[in-house]
Amino acid sequence: MKGKTLSKATLSRLPLYLQFVRAVQTERISSAVIARKLGLGEVQVRKDLASVCTAGSPKVGYPASQLLEDLEKVLGIRQSEKVVIVGAGKLGQALLEYDGFRDLGFEIMAVFDQDSGLQNEIRTSIPLMAMREMPSYCQMNGISMGILAVSSGNAQAAADQMADSGIKAMLNCTSCRVQVPETMMVYQNSIPLSLAYLKAMAYSSNQMEED
Amino acid sequence: MKGKTLSKATLSRLPLYLQFVRAVQTERISSAVIARKLGLGEVQVRKDLASVCTAGSPKVGYPASQLLEDLEKVLGIRQSEKVVIVGAGKLGQALLEYDGFRDLGFEIMAVFDQDSGLQNEIRTSIPLMAMREMPSYCQMNGISMGILAVSSGNAQAAADQMADSGIKAMLNCTSCRVQVPETMMVYQNSIPLSLAYLKAMAYSSNQMEED
Repeated sequence: MKGKTLSKATLSRLPLYLQFVRAVQTERISSAVIARKLGLGEVQVRKDLASVCTAGSPKVGYPASQLLEDLEKVLGIRQSEKVVIVGAGKLGQALLEYDGFRDLGFEIMAVFDQDSGLQNEIRTSIPLMAMREMPSYCQMNGISMGILAVSSGNAQAAADQMADSGIKAMLNCTSCRVQVPETMMVYQNSIPLSLAYLKAMAYSSNQMEED
Repeated sequence: MKGKTLSKATLSRLPLYLQFVRAVQTERISSAVIARKLGLGEVQVRKDLASVCTAGSPKVGYPASQLLEDLEKVLGIRQSEKVVIVGAGKLGQALLEYDGFRDLGFEIMAVFDQDSGLQNEIRTSIPLMAMREMPSYCQMNGISMGILAVSSGNAQAAADQMADSGIKAMLNCTSCRVQVPETMMVYQNSIPLSLAYLKAMAYSSNQMEED
């Protein structure tokens, strides 16, 4: 897909398609079926899939194996990606136990926290390390992705340390915005913000029904 | 804003604007400044804000207090919304301690789990209740929003129980898709899926740079 630019909106849906196509048992799969099962618009799904896989035909759909291969290629899942978690509190611990990272090509390598006492609460074999060890660890292991999962009060300081460690892409799971160098890409996944979005959707659809 | 239909894309950005406008110290605020600080397109921000607040003027921007009021109105934040959490494991516990819900107008009322032994791990005063108590509790307290935070293996069974309890809007924080009645609105906030999206963005922007 080199040289082809996908929109952010399309990119955001590709992991959903991947999850769905992986679970499918049939040889062929159509955008109409995917759209219906995922609750998305059929035209949108058709366009999204056409931009990643050229093997589809009208009426018969896509060969599932080819579509899967192309989705994995575009999402870069074929090369496993090493990731660190910053923050070993409840959220960090939840992430350590979360299934789903490996299926999407992520390997959680280590978790960093200033409180080494949290080791007792960690139930996985993933090592807990001190914040000051992050720069050398990330550089030695060629790690450029990290998940920020500290409490709000520590978010900016931890983000600074991630930047100093050579992290280039950060998933910010706090409810704060953080300032980062221009060379770092940040995507915020805040559960309260998602809940606000859901409420706004529910609210606006109720209003539409009432009108 | 009754009768006005906002796109899902616009709705998804409103909580971000709200967070930002709340933190602002100035009397007036322009869409150009908001766009720059949030890393969004200026045209997009201008259109979004024009769809929720009519008090803006070219060059001088919006009165911050009016914009804040209108954002809160559209997002339905003026009426506090009662929410339950389903699942008191690490993720549920992290959510109980998460700041940010109250600022967005949410009141976490109770957490439900089949394992009453988790009470010892909960550090807040929010009550832990048995799953079987959910229907009567939600009905008695007029609760129609819930957060699904169980492990993947329990996701569908818990979603069924939420539907039976009259939950109409569910934030699904597991990495599974769940089947729900058509009358229930679901928004999935999966951290592994968000990480896959971030990787795809980083990957595609690197490819663009290489081309």
